[in-house]
Amino acid sequence: MKRKQTSTGANAQLLARVRALSHRAVRDREDSFWIEGIRQFVQAYDARFDFSAVVYSPVLLKSSLAEMLLRRLAAAGVPRFKVSPEEFRSVGAALHASGVGAIVRQRWTPLDVAARRSGLGWLIVESIRSPGNLGTMLRTAEAAGMTGVIFVGSQCDPFDPVVVRSCMGGMFPLPMVRATPEQLATWGMRDGVQFVGLSPTADRLWTQGPSGPKVAIVLGEERSGLSAAMQKLCTTTVRLPMTGTADSLNVAMAASVMMYEFVRRAQPPN
Amino acid sequence: MKRKQTSTGANAQLLARVRALSHRAVRDREDSFWIEGIRQFVQAYDARFDFSAVVYSPVLLKSSLAEMLLRRLAAAGVPRFKVSPEEFRSVGAALHASGVGAIVRQRWTPLDVAARRSGLGWLIVESIRSPGNLGTMLRTAEAAGMTGVIFVGSQCDPFDPVVVRSCMGGMFPLPMVRATPEQLATWGMRDGVQFVGLSPTADRLWTQGPSGPKVAIVLGEERSGLSAAMQKLCTTTVRLPMTGTADSLNVAMAASVMMYEFVRRAQPPN
Repeated sequence: MKRKQTSTGANAQLLARVRALSHRAVRDREDSFWIEGIRQFVQAYDARFDFSAVVYSPVLLKSSLAEMLLRRLAAAGVPRFKVSPEEFRSVGAALHASGVGAIVRQRWTPLDVAARRSGLGWLIVESIRSPGNLGTMLRTAEAAGMTGVIFVGSQCDPFDPVVVRSCMGGMFPLPMVRATPEQLATWGMRDGVQFVGLSPTADRLWTQGPSGPKVAIVLGEERSGLSAAMQKLCTTTVRLPMTGTADSLNVAMAASVMMYEFVRRAQPPN
Repeated sequence: MKRKQTSTGANAQLLARVRALSHRAVRDREDSFWIEGIRQFVQAYDARFDFSAVVYSPVLLKSSLAEMLLRRLAAAGVPRFKVSPEEFRSVGAALHASGVGAIVRQRWTPLDVAARRSGLGWLIVESIRSPGNLGTMLRTAEAAGMTGVIFVGSQCDPFDPVVVRSCMGGMFPLPMVRATPEQLATWGMRDGVQFVGLSPTADRLWTQGPSGPKVAIVLGEERSGLSAAMQKLCTTTVRLPMTGTADSLNVAMAASVMMYEFVRRAQPPN
């Protein structure tokens, strides 16, 4: 009986910790975030994220792949917590409780390290209001093959549960960087990186800007656009043509079109 | 006192009707839908939608443009219902109640009529599970300048409140059509329209398919893809390259990239 009680106490403590991770301040302080569902779990495992604790409900879990990964993580010494379906649902946000979740360490790549990578080009996010938009954008960045995503300042949190959910873990393999406009300016000077802002008032079309491994697409906030510091950094701005009465494209759509313009130009000629 | 009571009774009746319009069956039967907020209201007015009734709360409404349109609609004989902030909030879904909403007639363009229009090309939607994705896609279609959007069968409802909300009324100027695969086949034969399916297993890249006013991009359901009837119709399929571990792009992102490929090719040469 004693053992059982201890276990329940440990579960309650862990579930409280999971709930607390829905708050930005707690995520920042613990340098961790919560993932949930088979897809996110497998993606985080494959991308070699560092698991702090695994939560599972054998009654709910219906994936032999997830079960195998659970065993591997346990063998590697990651604490795991067996919970009831009710306990799992008390922290799970998904409509259909998958029965698997984990507390995972956030992973940030320093700009200097990331800068050594080569890839299709960079995506820089200054501030995106909607976590759903940010998640979709990260999913496209990974699919398109962008080198990495750089967040200016600390406003955006890619480890927000809504972001993670809306990209379905698709962002995990993508290197993520935090940098100040000053650090970006230094990087630009040192490595010859060009910053291209997306702005509805730009003269040049999105097809007329530079692209490639040494180019970074810079996205500002949905309504207010880029800050003065980031505007100063952008040597080029481009726009997507809009007809009709539409006054703006959804920022995630605009970002996707820009990233696939990079993909298009990187294709070998026919 | 009698007049006041009548007015309250009329309000209650109208608000019940508004609430009922959240159900697809009621929207279909009444051939109407509910719009809410200044932006949707102005967009629907500008696109000359047919207003059946206007609901407004003078206490909440803070837009002189909306107030002017309200007066114009009243002068044109559209019944208007003045409600309290509480009454308005009882039907409003927006976080910040704007104080203006309306019951508007749905507008469908017959395929034969729409087919006479010229534009950038067509978007055909067979079945999109997420109304948010559909709304974002419609907003991009309008911004890109697509000729119109054709819905295959009756599964998708562009007048679903979530669709309307997520495209912020941006879809209103866009002609919307319903057609069967048979009608589309006849149209294709008669007008030489080519149907291009988007499929992750296609051999050709998205840049290698046809584009232009006589080309229709065909999008299937997020997971299951195109039906057999629509696959048969598509003479070409194209794919967007995906690298890394991503197994799919969000359907609205893929659609946006495809539509902007049409925009790109329609640009005059430099």
